[in-house]
Amino acid sequence: MKHYDALVIGAGPAGVAAALYLARFGMRLAMAEKLAPGGLLLQTFEIENYPGFPQGVKGYELADSLAAHLEPYDNITRIHDEITEFIVEGDSKRLLAGGEWISASAVIIASGVQYRKLGLPNEEKLLGRGISHCALCDGNFFKDQPVAVVGGGNSAVEETLHLAKIVSHVHLIHRRDEFRAAPLYLSRLKALPNVSLRSSTVITSLHGEQQLEGLTLKDLHKGTEEFLSLNGLFIFVGFEPAAPVLPPDLKRDRGGFIETDTEMRTNLPGVFAAGDIRSKLCRQVVTAVGDGATAANSAYTYLEQQHG
Amino acid sequence: MKHYDALVIGAGPAGVAAALYLARFGMRLAMAEKLAPGGLLLQTFEIENYPGFPQGVKGYELADSLAAHLEPYDNITRIHDEITEFIVEGDSKRLLAGGEWISASAVIIASGVQYRKLGLPNEEKLLGRGISHCALCDGNFFKDQPVAVVGGGNSAVEETLHLAKIVSHVHLIHRRDEFRAAPLYLSRLKALPNVSLRSSTVITSLHGEQQLEGLTLKDLHKGTEEFLSLNGLFIFVGFEPAAPVLPPDLKRDRGGFIETDTEMRTNLPGVFAAGDIRSKLCRQVVTAVGDGATAANSAYTYLEQQHG
Repeated sequence: MKHYDALVIGAGPAGVAAALYLARFGMRLAMAEKLAPGGLLLQTFEIENYPGFPQGVKGYELADSLAAHLEPYDNITRIHDEITEFIVEGDSKRLLAGGEWISASAVIIASGVQYRKLGLPNEEKLLGRGISHCALCDGNFFKDQPVAVVGGGNSAVEETLHLAKIVSHVHLIHRRDEFRAAPLYLSRLKALPNVSLRSSTVITSLHGEQQLEGLTLKDLHKGTEEFLSLNGLFIFVGFEPAAPVLPPDLKRDRGGFIETDTEMRTNLPGVFAAGDIRSKLCRQVVTAVGDGATAANSAYTYLEQQHG
Repeated sequence: MKHYDALVIGAGPAGVAAALYLARFGMRLAMAEKLAPGGLLLQTFEIENYPGFPQGVKGYELADSLAAHLEPYDNITRIHDEITEFIVEGDSKRLLAGGEWISASAVIIASGVQYRKLGLPNEEKLLGRGISHCALCDGNFFKDQPVAVVGGGNSAVEETLHLAKIVSHVHLIHRRDEFRAAPLYLSRLKALPNVSLRSSTVITSLHGEQQLEGLTLKDLHKGTEEFLSLNGLFIFVGFEPAAPVLPPDLKRDRGGFIETDTEMRTNLPGVFAAGDIRSKLCRQVVTAVGDGATAANSAYTYLEQQHG
């Protein structure tokens, strides 16, 4: 069984920052990630608020920069498989990745989040057939056509701003009276002629078999329903933990996010969490990389204490 | 009395990140900082591990980039005075800056750290007369001359690596047997012909009146003393809080650093802390900016709850 000083699960901003710091500490480490490094950055058009890039930076560019940090280090093993078992027995951690067992003295969980679904019939079937969680990836399929976006937070509004440049019209649907996105975003949104804000409105059904053909909307104040004919729907109604298999006694909040202290330590010794998978209020690229560095520092301290 | 939604104390990486996020939330805010934005970045030669800059970035360049983030926002008032009073009375915070009282609904303390002194006679007097806490600022005064560095952590070793390129010889003095700097740094250090590592050694006196003329060193194992004739000493023996006046009932650790929860909330409602001034284990640029964003988010949430 291969053994590492530390295993990092995930290669988004938190995972890459953790791996960078661990590599610089001289640790022998592995990083497990099925996809390319970058995490949700790869599905983000532009990041305006990552300190150091005052002109903004494209998601994929920042993802590339992060990945480039790791290139000089030969003490990082890449594992391109999903973790399917994760067993903690005292100080020993054993994990199954792609049918092979590995062990690690410390594990940093940085597996991030995934988009939450609406929970409607047909939703799963129509994903990739008109329903998307990524305006950057799929916006161009709907050039000069009307689309809908559902959600009320920063993600929904950011993606609407991006889509409005491509499509003919965006219906931004939100179940509450007020959008909770940052005021700066909302003022930009209101200046756009081809965006309709539809608050206090929910989607009650998704129409279409091979391809999305339309939505039924319900006005929550009036109780009235309306059919909206369109082929594109972008869903940004929050996130849920993108957790691989986790130890059953790892402390998580009601949403399934991992609880840590300020040093990124979980309730299990030698198990740390960083980035969006943590139970926290501010999920940003900059907080993810900060978490990653802190988790690596804590893992290094833990290992130093273990080995004398 | 001028009132702000939020006041940020300090304009280092944590303070700037906090101000950026608050400005984007549409808050009316003030940032109090005597010096130029950048904090300790301005005294740092190169930063190798700030995610997004895989080739490294000079301290002053990153400081400039951070400051540039704030330029587009007209809702930030700059206060170039020190805070000399800080009174918390329930939800109201009143502060005295340059003889003028201001009030703020939320305060984010991001005043950072300052270099700790050795505590020797003459030290204060010889500061700037041969004694320095900034190799970047003062290294060139000692071109082709021998100097000493005191300390055993990453800062001491980073600054030694920088000085070794300029001066004739660096005596790196550390009171313990082992240097606690990252292994990567130590291996680079050992490869340099003009650096002597002097472990288990302390400085017992500083010689000179108008200018540093030499040090007395004591070998802690042998008990022997030695005079070292040189004109430059760089002190990197850790940090202490660079705290302005703080409310007496603000919870701080034994070192004087401010205790927060994972959301950067202190024990006083509406008072937050971010960056190096916090009680924490990992003081890095990347953790400071992450803290700043989180603190701003918490301050925004606090204000939303207060007002509605």
